[in-house]
Amino acid sequence: MWGGRFAEGPAAVMREINASIPFDKRMWRQDIAASKAHVAMLATQGVVAQEDAAAISAGLDTVAADYEANGVPDDLTLEDIHMLSEAKLAAAIGPVAGRLHTARSRNDQVATDFRLWVRDAIDQTRTALAALDAALLARAEQHAGDVMPGFTHLQSAQPVTLGHHLMAYHEMIARDATRFADARARMNLCPLGSAALAGTGFPLDRHATAAALGFDGPTRNSLDAVSDRDFAIEYLTAAAQCSLHLSRLAEEFVLWASQPFGFVALSDQWSTGSSIMPQKRNPDAAELVRGHAGRITGCLVSLMVTMKGLPLAYSKDMQDDKPPVFECHDLLGLSIAAMTGMIESATFRTDRMRALAESGYATATDLADWLVREANVPFREAHHITGRAVARAEALAVTLDQVPLADLKAIDPRIDDRVYSVLSVDASVASRTSFGGTAPDNVRAAIRAARGE
Amino acid sequence: MWGGRFAEGPAAVMREINASIPFDKRMWRQDIAASKAHVAMLATQGVVAQEDAAAISAGLDTVAADYEANGVPDDLTLEDIHMLSEAKLAAAIGPVAGRLHTARSRNDQVATDFRLWVRDAIDQTRTALAALDAALLARAEQHAGDVMPGFTHLQSAQPVTLGHHLMAYHEMIARDATRFADARARMNLCPLGSAALAGTGFPLDRHATAAALGFDGPTRNSLDAVSDRDFAIEYLTAAAQCSLHLSRLAEEFVLWASQPFGFVALSDQWSTGSSIMPQKRNPDAAELVRGHAGRITGCLVSLMVTMKGLPLAYSKDMQDDKPPVFECHDLLGLSIAAMTGMIESATFRTDRMRALAESGYATATDLADWLVREANVPFREAHHITGRAVARAEALAVTLDQVPLADLKAIDPRIDDRVYSVLSVDASVASRTSFGGTAPDNVRAAIRAARGE
Amino acid sequence: MWGGRFAEGPAAVMREINASIPFDKRMWRQDIAASKAHVAMLATQGVVAQEDAAAISAGLDTVAADYEANGVPDDLTLEDIHMLSEAKLAAAIGPVAGRLHTARSRNDQVATDFRLWVRDAIDQTRTALAALDAALLARAEQHAGDVMPGFTHLQSAQPVTLGHHLMAYHEMIARDATRFADARARMNLCPLGSAALAGTGFPLDRHATAAALGFDGPTRNSLDAVSDRDFAIEYLTAAAQCSLHLSRLAEEFVLWASQPFGFVALSDQWSTGSSIMPQKRNPDAAELVRGHAGRITGCLVSLMVTMKGLPLAYSKDMQDDKPPVFECHDLLGLSIAAMTGMIESATFRTDRMRALAESGYATATDLADWLVREANVPFREAHHITGRAVARAEALAVTLDQVPLADLKAIDPRIDDRVYSVLSVDASVASRTSFGGTAPDNVRAAIRAARGE
Amino acid sequence: MWGGRFAEGPAAVMREINASIPFDKRMWRQDIAASKAHVAMLATQGVVAQEDAAAISAGLDTVAADYEANGVPDDLTLEDIHMLSEAKLAAAIGPVAGRLHTARSRNDQVATDFRLWVRDAIDQTRTALAALDAALLARAEQHAGDVMPGFTHLQSAQPVTLGHHLMAYHEMIARDATRFADARARMNLCPLGSAALAGTGFPLDRHATAAALGFDGPTRNSLDAVSDRDFAIEYLTAAAQCSLHLSRLAEEFVLWASQPFGFVALSDQWSTGSSIMPQKRNPDAAELVRGHAGRITGCLVSLMVTMKGLPLAYSKDMQDDKPPVFECHDLLGLSIAAMTGMIESATFRTDRMRALAESGYATATDLADWLVREANVPFREAHHITGRAVARAEALAVTLDQVPLADLKAIDPRIDDRVYSVLSVDASVASRTSFGGTAPDNVRAAIRAARGE
Repeated sequence: MWGGRFAEGPAAVMREINASIPFDKRMWRQDIAASKAHVAMLATQGVVAQEDAAAISAGLDTVAADYEANGVPDDLTLEDIHMLSEAKLAAAIGPVAGRLHTARSRNDQVATDFRLWVRDAIDQTRTALAALDAALLARAEQHAGDVMPGFTHLQSAQPVTLGHHLMAYHEMIARDATRFADARARMNLCPLGSAALAGTGFPLDRHATAAALGFDGPTRNSLDAVSDRDFAIEYLTAAAQCSLHLSRLAEEFVLWASQPFGFVALSDQWSTGSSIMPQKRNPDAAELVRGHAGRITGCLVSLMVTMKGLPLAYSKDMQDDKPPVFECHDLLGLSIAAMTGMIESATFRTDRMRALAESGYATATDLADWLVREANVPFREAHHITGRAVARAEALAVTLDQVPLADLKAIDPRIDDRVYSVLSVDASVASRTSFGGTAPDNVRAAIRAARGE
Repeated sequence: MWGGRFAEGPAAVMREINASIPFDKRMWRQDIAASKAHVAMLATQGVVAQEDAAAISAGLDTVAADYEANGVPDDLTLEDIHMLSEAKLAAAIGPVAGRLHTARSRNDQVATDFRLWVRDAIDQTRTALAALDAALLARAEQHAGDVMPGFTHLQSAQPVTLGHHLMAYHEMIARDATRFADARARMNLCPLGSAALAGTGFPLDRHATAAALGFDGPTRNSLDAVSDRDFAIEYLTAAAQCSLHLSRLAEEFVLWASQPFGFVALSDQWSTGSSIMPQKRNPDAAELVRGHAGRITGCLVSLMVTMKGLPLAYSKDMQDDKPPVFECHDLLGLSIAAMTGMIESATFRTDRMRALAESGYATATDLADWLVREANVPFREAHHITGRAVARAEALAVTLDQVPLADLKAIDPRIDDRVYSVLSVDASVASRTSFGGTAPDNVRAAIRAARGE
Repeated sequence: MWGGRFAEGPAAVMREINASIPFDKRMWRQDIAASKAHVAMLATQGVVAQEDAAAISAGLDTVAADYEANGVPDDLTLEDIHMLSEAKLAAAIGPVAGRLHTARSRNDQVATDFRLWVRDAIDQTRTALAALDAALLARAEQHAGDVMPGFTHLQSAQPVTLGHHLMAYHEMIARDATRFADARARMNLCPLGSAALAGTGFPLDRHATAAALGFDGPTRNSLDAVSDRDFAIEYLTAAAQCSLHLSRLAEEFVLWASQPFGFVALSDQWSTGSSIMPQKRNPDAAELVRGHAGRITGCLVSLMVTMKGLPLAYSKDMQDDKPPVFECHDLLGLSIAAMTGMIESATFRTDRMRALAESGYATATDLADWLVREANVPFREAHHITGRAVARAEALAVTLDQVPLADLKAIDPRIDDRVYSVLSVDASVASRTSFGGTAPDNVRAAIRAARGE
Repeated sequence: MWGGRFAEGPAAVMREINASIPFDKRMWRQDIAASKAHVAMLATQGVVAQEDAAAISAGLDTVAADYEANGVPDDLTLEDIHMLSEAKLAAAIGPVAGRLHTARSRNDQVATDFRLWVRDAIDQTRTALAALDAALLARAEQHAGDVMPGFTHLQSAQPVTLGHHLMAYHEMIARDATRFADARARMNLCPLGSAALAGTGFPLDRHATAAALGFDGPTRNSLDAVSDRDFAIEYLTAAAQCSLHLSRLAEEFVLWASQPFGFVALSDQWSTGSSIMPQKRNPDAAELVRGHAGRITGCLVSLMVTMKGLPLAYSKDMQDDKPPVFECHDLLGLSIAAMTGMIESATFRTDRMRALAESGYATATDLADWLVREANVPFREAHHITGRAVARAEALAVTLDQVPLADLKAIDPRIDDRVYSVLSVDASVASRTSFGGTAPDNVRAAIRAARGE
């Protein structure tokens, strides 16, 4: 494989550390596609005879059909998917197979295959995110007017609606989708034809190969093309940000499914039992989504550390680019799908949400705002007055709207009985009509906008 | 500060862990600007009287002038830049200052200030990257035709030109610039008016505030607006990718400045001596740039871990968002500036580069390609023949173009004396005319394209 | 400073990226101590005259007193604490100061100073952990018999006692303490005398210097001594593991302080209010401890990435070793102190804990175990029977010990009325007497053992 | 599997995200061993009848033999290795298999299995490190007196010996070995008997189970026992530090194998060729070892992030503990083995090393030290004089020991012809006799000490 120059074969450890076939075989479709595009271009350019190119192309189809039917073997002696496919091609069509590798190198070949793979991964991720987003929008619409406590510091702060809360995740997912789109657009250039590192003297048409593979054009510098893994890192950064969003939603599912909260009942499909505690309905899927954010962060760190300080051009360290990307894609795919399923099938206990929203002085800000609006009290002063009103409610063990007017007036005489109209959670929620606020009509408008309606 | 409800003051440890003023005072300009935009809008909307707004705005200018002249004090009892500025405003203009905080919360205030700061950081970074890029293009132009060994696995592989090598870094820097631009575009929405988490009932014009602060519009969901730190993480991911690129160039400077390579002489300005070895010229700046990539990666990990699994909306963990971002910006700014200086002032020893390029059988691929082109040998076979030719050159202790024709013909009779024309490094480099290849004319064209010429 | 060889001074950017004085001045005490030990040894060995050594030692005391009184100036032109102290020494005592740097280099000097600093940090951390542990033991003793729900998957699983729960954190903290102790023991060797990288020809007594500075002996290889930062990384790993433990306890404080749980009321000292929601009592300190775990993880990653792939011996990248270590120490110190204060002052609402423990079928396992013990049912079968009993309780909307015997017998006739004696939470807890189990007497024994009683 | 309570089966996505069998089957030996120890103890304690225990134990042997012969099937419906083994046991011996799970839970079962696995991994790692260390010592002995340039900042600084350089790695590896030993000692407690989280009421003898499995005793707190993954994180930290050491040695192999350095020729077994450049001998194994340090760092980050902020006791996130540990062990094992092979088989080109050591003014410090010793010049002044001597040598284009005495005397009249005796690299190296210094006799003594001779 490496020419006729090595007297000894590699040791077993060397073969094992060196071979990438156990993982890079996942790219076999991309490898075949890129080889076919390459040889077709070579034929068009007259570098390879048309009949040879036809034989090679047909042979590659044969190899692909074999992989499809029988899987890709872990042949460590052939090192990687590129050498394996070329060996299988040679077995299928004989020495003419040797013309395929004209004007290319494994360096540009792997860079091309991996870009194609990552591009596919991005496309799959965006499709999955669209499904998750649809689920969020559907449930948000259903619960656009259902009151729940809005938390800061996990303390009940102000009432919001469940629909508004779910729409916060729509925003995150929508940003994620654009990050993946940006990454895709930036990476969509074809390294093929950069050869080992210097380009080639053969009269290639790199634009043709790029177009055949769906790229926007060829990469612009051959040294960069074979030593660049930005596209993989950027995919991982987008995935990590997405997984962090999912981890937040997962945390909320775990919290909400706990007995003290009781905000959600997960469906049987998306919870598990215990081997020793038969009464348990565990939010395992949510926990695993949360845990996977840790592993995906690890995948990102892995490739960043690997790439740090590597001189140009290709170094073998870069073979460690694929395992974290493959692992990330599997974990993220499962995470998005599981979260979609949980969202779709969860039963939200809006009665429990409302009860908690009503119990925690969550409309205190509404009192302060009323003082500003109706009594022209500067906000900071209104804030202090409200603090004393809450303290009184606590002392009386009642909710804020149950504090007698006399008590409120004793705190500040500017308060009158109109104040009670703003102290219910429904009134509070309905009043938050500033753009992006939680008023049910706002939420519904946001859903329509998200759907492009 | 927190209303009239706490009997005891916080303990010293609590004050110290809780206060962010030692670091968030870096945002004082952003905090003043956002407050001015907010109060102007409140006045326009009739929420605050025009004269109160004017007093507040003038007071904020006074506070800003004080900060500018005397610095921002580390007053832990006032906790953060927001409370400090409001306290200073109250000291300057009296109780009317209390109207400023109408219809906002520290949650949307800090989200706005920090976005403004990160946006400024991005703009500064892009300016710095443009200077680095200009330096790269200038030196690439100067050395567009100077031959050096192209490395893979740090082994001399094929000759390239120094200009082509430098242009690989132009590609990386150009991608970095677009990543920062994408991050900027995605983050450029204004959280102000989201209030604590639910929006507000005051009749705000969030579009006006957004426009006044240079945002493209307001954020769309109040819960997301106060709990989102995507913009900071995305800034850090772009910075980390950029720092990884710089670490690769830094590694090359360190290698090239070593005696065995001797490819570069750093200027006095960008190297240091030793306290015990007076003959040393150490590439400290390059090493520090390389080291800073580690710290910047750490900054990214820091914020990712902090955000993992946080339920909505604001949690105090999010106060740990700023130190890594501030540290990253300082480190990246120094790294880019130092690298720019090194590039501009370095003396490249092109004689040493050429000598090494000529010594390492770097034109072996040219021999293989010649066999393909001139003798119609399949590439794989040509590759094997070339391997034997190199082995012969090694045995004779000569370069490839010094192997006698007889010896070459003994290896393969299809070789004739035309082959010598492709075995020089100049011929090799000149032949690589495929798009993105290292041929000097290609390099010059790439430079022109990069300059938009 | 670097001898007489540089024609130009370093540029401003170079000075800023190169200077470590803004952060390494934290090591001034260690630097003075190491210099005094070095010169005393040089005098004993006859390398420096006794009177010169005495002058240097007295001069170092003068410099130290100046630092103590006036702080350490940020003089970037003197680059680091080592050069600054030597310059100040020369200013104080004249040219004889130049004899101090005999037989040493900044490379072994900084390695020594930093080890001393990290050793001190470890000692401080262990003292702080002991205080936290004492607080845990005290509260565990107080609540050794108080029942709370034990959670898995944040679902109520089996009753435990609060004391037992707190003692789980004692175990973590105890492990942390031993990890710091191991790190201290491993690092406690003195690099001084390794000079730049090769050792020295002066007749040093490295054992004497080591002993004077409290080290167990000198390091064994001069190249390793100046290029090793294992001690800093190991400190960071111990700190990161500790911070992860604290983050778990912090998460529980945040959960427990939420209205739905209501398991804990934080003291005024350890909670904060809101600028807009006066009723809030936010567990800010707990959130910040949780957030700091993210930053400490970032510190660890930072130094690991920086050290990756550095050839021997000293490289300037290693100057980036100190900021993450210093930051980590500050964050961890605050985290431990804050957690100690929260533990000491928290009011645990054991009534709420008991009520939840009683409401969630948490004694289901006790029923299954009873079937195994009293009716010789294989566990797996007992587990299925119990599942049906819980389903019956759910259907009846009662707790498990309120299901009528007839209903239980209908599920499995082997159940008789003795079963009720195991279905209360107190009985359940009292029964868990296996070593390490939650029975109150076990918990008390564990506390005594932890105290060495 | 989860009792009789779920109406619907889990969805395909749920099954896939939830099942750990694809990776946790690696622990089958540990799972069988722990089950056998458990049931033997149950029988001794009278909890399970002796004949039942005997049947179970024999059945477990049958299951183990089946795994050994046929592998462990990926049966996702059985979720994990624990349920699979119990199902296979039931198939083999019938309902009595249901007695095995008495007084345990999957929570303590997996904690025990995984500790056993990590303990085995540590033992294997320590064996591998011993082999690497032996290789280092052997090569260090061979080259104890061979001079090479010692580098700082990758600049030739002072001459050292190759043996001394290799012994620096011995020091790192020796520290690694003690870190693994400390981790093993700390983790060697048995969780079995902690049951789900609360302990159990069955009369267990946890000390007996612990002893049977080679543990030093049982864990002390049942909640901690099932929620602790410190042992896995500590293993990963030790592995990461080790991999960073290997990455430094790998970097040096890559540098040294480059044409400009030419310090080492890798054997055929440990290098590879190129598919397009037949003359290449690439240090792939070294590069992969360096790259693996990135992935191992990623593994560590992965588990740290996953564990951050998890409340007690077991959460399903913790299922994500195993993939990074398994991956790390594979990568580290290959890295150590590959590095051992490279060390053993490398040909060090000591002539090239010596030539470079002699060319770079590396004995400048020796001149400065001579001035201190023989002319009583303060070191700082000697350092300046030496700087001028080096400048003179540079101007004359000669080495330091070739500068005429007249030129040296012109710089400082205290220099006389005795100085030449210290300016050769051999004299320099031989003079560094301080403890830990590079003098060949020191190196040999260090080797003997390392071997315990």
